[in-house]
Amino acid sequence: MSAAARTLAQIAALVGGKVIGDGGVLIHRVAPIADAVDGEITFLANARYAKYLEGCRASAVIVGVGAAAGYIGRSRFAFLEAADPYVAFAKILQLFLPSVRLAQSRSSQAAIDASAVIEDGVTVFPNVFVSAEARVGRNSVLYPGVYVGDGAEIGSDCVLHPNVVVRQGCRVGNRVIVHAGAVIGSDGFGYAGHGEDRIKIPQVGIVVVEDDVEIGANATVDRATLGQTIIERGAKIDNLVQIAHNVRIGAHSIIAAQVGIAGSSKVGKHVTILGQAGIVNHIEIGDGAIIGPQSGIPKSVPAGALLSGGIAAAPHHEWLKVMALLPQLPKLWASVRSIERQIASLLKK
Amino acid sequence: MSAAARTLAQIAALVGGKVIGDGGVLIHRVAPIADAVDGEITFLANARYAKYLEGCRASAVIVGVGAAAGYIGRSRFAFLEAADPYVAFAKILQLFLPSVRLAQSRSSQAAIDASAVIEDGVTVFPNVFVSAEARVGRNSVLYPGVYVGDGAEIGSDCVLHPNVVVRQGCRVGNRVIVHAGAVIGSDGFGYAGHGEDRIKIPQVGIVVVEDDVEIGANATVDRATLGQTIIERGAKIDNLVQIAHNVRIGAHSIIAAQVGIAGSSKVGKHVTILGQAGIVNHIEIGDGAIIGPQSGIPKSVPAGALLSGGIAAAPHHEWLKVMALLPQLPKLWASVRSIERQIASLLKK
Amino acid sequence: MSAAARTLAQIAALVGGKVIGDGGVLIHRVAPIADAVDGEITFLANARYAKYLEGCRASAVIVGVGAAAGYIGRSRFAFLEAADPYVAFAKILQLFLPSVRLAQSRSSQAAIDASAVIEDGVTVFPNVFVSAEARVGRNSVLYPGVYVGDGAEIGSDCVLHPNVVVRQGCRVGNRVIVHAGAVIGSDGFGYAGHGEDRIKIPQVGIVVVEDDVEIGANATVDRATLGQTIIERGAKIDNLVQIAHNVRIGAHSIIAAQVGIAGSSKVGKHVTILGQAGIVNHIEIGDGAIIGPQSGIPKSVPAGALLSGGIAAAPHHEWLKVMALLPQLPKLWASVRSIERQIASLLKK
Repeated sequence: MSAAARTLAQIAALVGGKVIGDGGVLIHRVAPIADAVDGEITFLANARYAKYLEGCRASAVIVGVGAAAGYIGRSRFAFLEAADPYVAFAKILQLFLPSVRLAQSRSSQAAIDASAVIEDGVTVFPNVFVSAEARVGRNSVLYPGVYVGDGAEIGSDCVLHPNVVVRQGCRVGNRVIVHAGAVIGSDGFGYAGHGEDRIKIPQVGIVVVEDDVEIGANATVDRATLGQTIIERGAKIDNLVQIAHNVRIGAHSIIAAQVGIAGSSKVGKHVTILGQAGIVNHIEIGDGAIIGPQSGIPKSVPAGALLSGGIAAAPHHEWLKVMALLPQLPKLWASVRSIERQIASLLKK
Repeated sequence: MSAAARTLAQIAALVGGKVIGDGGVLIHRVAPIADAVDGEITFLANARYAKYLEGCRASAVIVGVGAAAGYIGRSRFAFLEAADPYVAFAKILQLFLPSVRLAQSRSSQAAIDASAVIEDGVTVFPNVFVSAEARVGRNSVLYPGVYVGDGAEIGSDCVLHPNVVVRQGCRVGNRVIVHAGAVIGSDGFGYAGHGEDRIKIPQVGIVVVEDDVEIGANATVDRATLGQTIIERGAKIDNLVQIAHNVRIGAHSIIAAQVGIAGSSKVGKHVTILGQAGIVNHIEIGDGAIIGPQSGIPKSVPAGALLSGGIAAAPHHEWLKVMALLPQLPKLWASVRSIERQIASLLKK
Repeated sequence: MSAAARTLAQIAALVGGKVIGDGGVLIHRVAPIADAVDGEITFLANARYAKYLEGCRASAVIVGVGAAAGYIGRSRFAFLEAADPYVAFAKILQLFLPSVRLAQSRSSQAAIDASAVIEDGVTVFPNVFVSAEARVGRNSVLYPGVYVGDGAEIGSDCVLHPNVVVRQGCRVGNRVIVHAGAVIGSDGFGYAGHGEDRIKIPQVGIVVVEDDVEIGANATVDRATLGQTIIERGAKIDNLVQIAHNVRIGAHSIIAAQVGIAGSSKVGKHVTILGQAGIVNHIEIGDGAIIGPQSGIPKSVPAGALLSGGIAAAPHHEWLKVMALLPQLPKLWASVRSIERQIASLLKK
């Protein structure tokens, strides 16, 4: 994470921030607040880490507008105030990103079908497999073990990390990042009939992943039975997420780790679904909704809703008592209703 | 998904349905109801999509017996009535499946041990690894990145999608489909002793996957400590499911995505376990039981039981109140009991 | 699982147990209690399997101290009593482990960068990729499809099962086992800004996996944003677990399948987290805490706490009633409080 050094003033100009202190100090690296030393810039990510400011040995600290006020003249480091300090932090990290060595050519140890189209600047590592009539756009990177099926299309400037699978006919947009082991285009889970007579419903649709999507490690996105499973532009999908056949994830939505979304459900735009939540099939989550961790969503959710369903764990012996009573809630209600009637009758007397 | 066209009457004969309307119309493709056009057959999958019948431009629609009655003479398309329209739909999809080009030979870029037995008609893609004394039966397909360990056996007509791992000694039956990234035969999670002195219990058993099983993408099936982890014939396992050591999954059971089944538990035949449910170790789920999504199953379940344990999410601010009160259920019960005693005493007076 | 036979007395000496019965009997294999025959030793793993002792045809059975007393003179097999019979069982399994044939050399079908350092005795299978400046320590095994990124370090005596990914710069200690398909060092899930303007926060930290850790199949461990995600020595992580960026897992902790631990949370030493539990971000789980299955942990947990949050599933039609009432708990409380006031006022009269 080291690159050419820049002055704090140069950095501030690049990310749209304001220097409080010495803008001439040279910065060459970003580091965590507890570890940062001379020549490094750090970030006060969370109010609970403010205690670290006291002993901070960084040359500069990124903070929100006005947050430096209390420290002026008292700190040995400079501040970079930014309207959104988190965005400034991200941009500064990007400034100091080490350049990755990429061959921008095809490894002779990759298996690429003669009918596949690999555009200029693409890096194909060893052990990659690109099938017939597949296309990979300019400057994309296929790490070792990547599989691109028949006629699949990968856009430009994509990164497919090791062992990513994109099965036949699926379409991936531009600037898409797919993390290691993720599977795009596995068969949807569909059967007809029962028991011995159950038969597989062929899954002949595809997956469409639009531009600027990121998909986490070992996540799975099933192809549609017919038609398309769609992940709209800018959506971010975390590790080990399951997206079933014919689901649509709206633009810029955020799906945290281990969430499961069952078949044909539609998630709106700018939705946030937190870890381990589950969405049943054939429902709709409205735009901008926020779903808490571990929540079960059994029916459609209106736009903008803020839902929770997770249970906070409790001390085990207390929880055993709660669990014994929970199934008896209906009986408890009946008791209370009966008491209310008795009191009403007592009061009448 | 296009193949040779057939008349609707021919299709009806093949799937055992009845034509209402013009049996001579040529069909060459299956399409979703909202998209289907001339020459295509579609399927009314769900009553909620009946609205699409009005503007439907398909040449034919698959429906249940009697469902066409209301439309006769009014529709510009024909109907194919079937006893189980979903089964008819699946069979028609199979009719129109595009043929997949398979080499039915071993890629020179695969690594196959000299002692491995690869039967006739097997397709071995590049980057496949088949270890010593492994066997692969007739017409099976090993996609790129597949690993078959020492002495493992894969039956005939199997499909192992890219990057599937079948570790040493495991046995996979015939017509088994394993989706990309799934792992069969990883070590069970077993240790003896505590802390610093904890030691690994070698996992020397195997996994047996019987005929006609399907296992989802990135699912994991651990080998037995001793003996066998067994997935009986016809069971269908969805993506990201965890099956621990020494588990047995009964014939024709359905395990939806992200379910976890802990060590040594036995799931009966024809069981359905819905998404994200969890089954503790050393219990039995009786034949035909149905377990709802996100349910926790802490003890054995009788045959035919229908269990639920998932919580429906609620508006966040209301849920906070519920969560504050839930741990106090025992106190609430005590209050109600105390009130009942007071009322009894009041009524005596 | 067969190796050279040993007498029961020899085995007892090796594992620190006591023979009750014929110490001269030859043992060549370990088998499950229901299957074991002559020449085999078995293990009474669980009191519920004691029924199998009656018809047991093994030559010896491992039990706890004193457990053989009731059977002396009545059984046709010998007993091996051990202070911790489970530990004895594990050690005996290790005694009889079949030796695995390993080349201890680099396959010519592996792609190893010229600048990578591969120490003596390392086995590199075909289709492995080892990137620039990576290091792999003595006697480690890289199975097919393993990826070791730029500058990553793998210690000695490690086993990386097929298709394991260790991305650039990550450090894995000695005697670490990583099961098939696990990903170490995928990007943390971090973004700044909102909607269209959301940008990726580069994840430039690493993952450090200390000695004697085991990581399950298809588990994912994200690299830190800055700094390190750390899995301390001896921790055991099961299949499909998600460990987010900047998490620390303490020494000798046990994390069961499908658990998710969100960003920057710290799990103490000797902690046990059972299946499908979820830990929110930025909290601490104290040393020795035990977290029940499916529990949601929304705030820090003190050392030694025993927490549960899982719900036991109930018959579906009863559960529907409970679910209808659960959101009305606040109203129920209000009713009870109102009743209490009315009774107090009645009692005053």
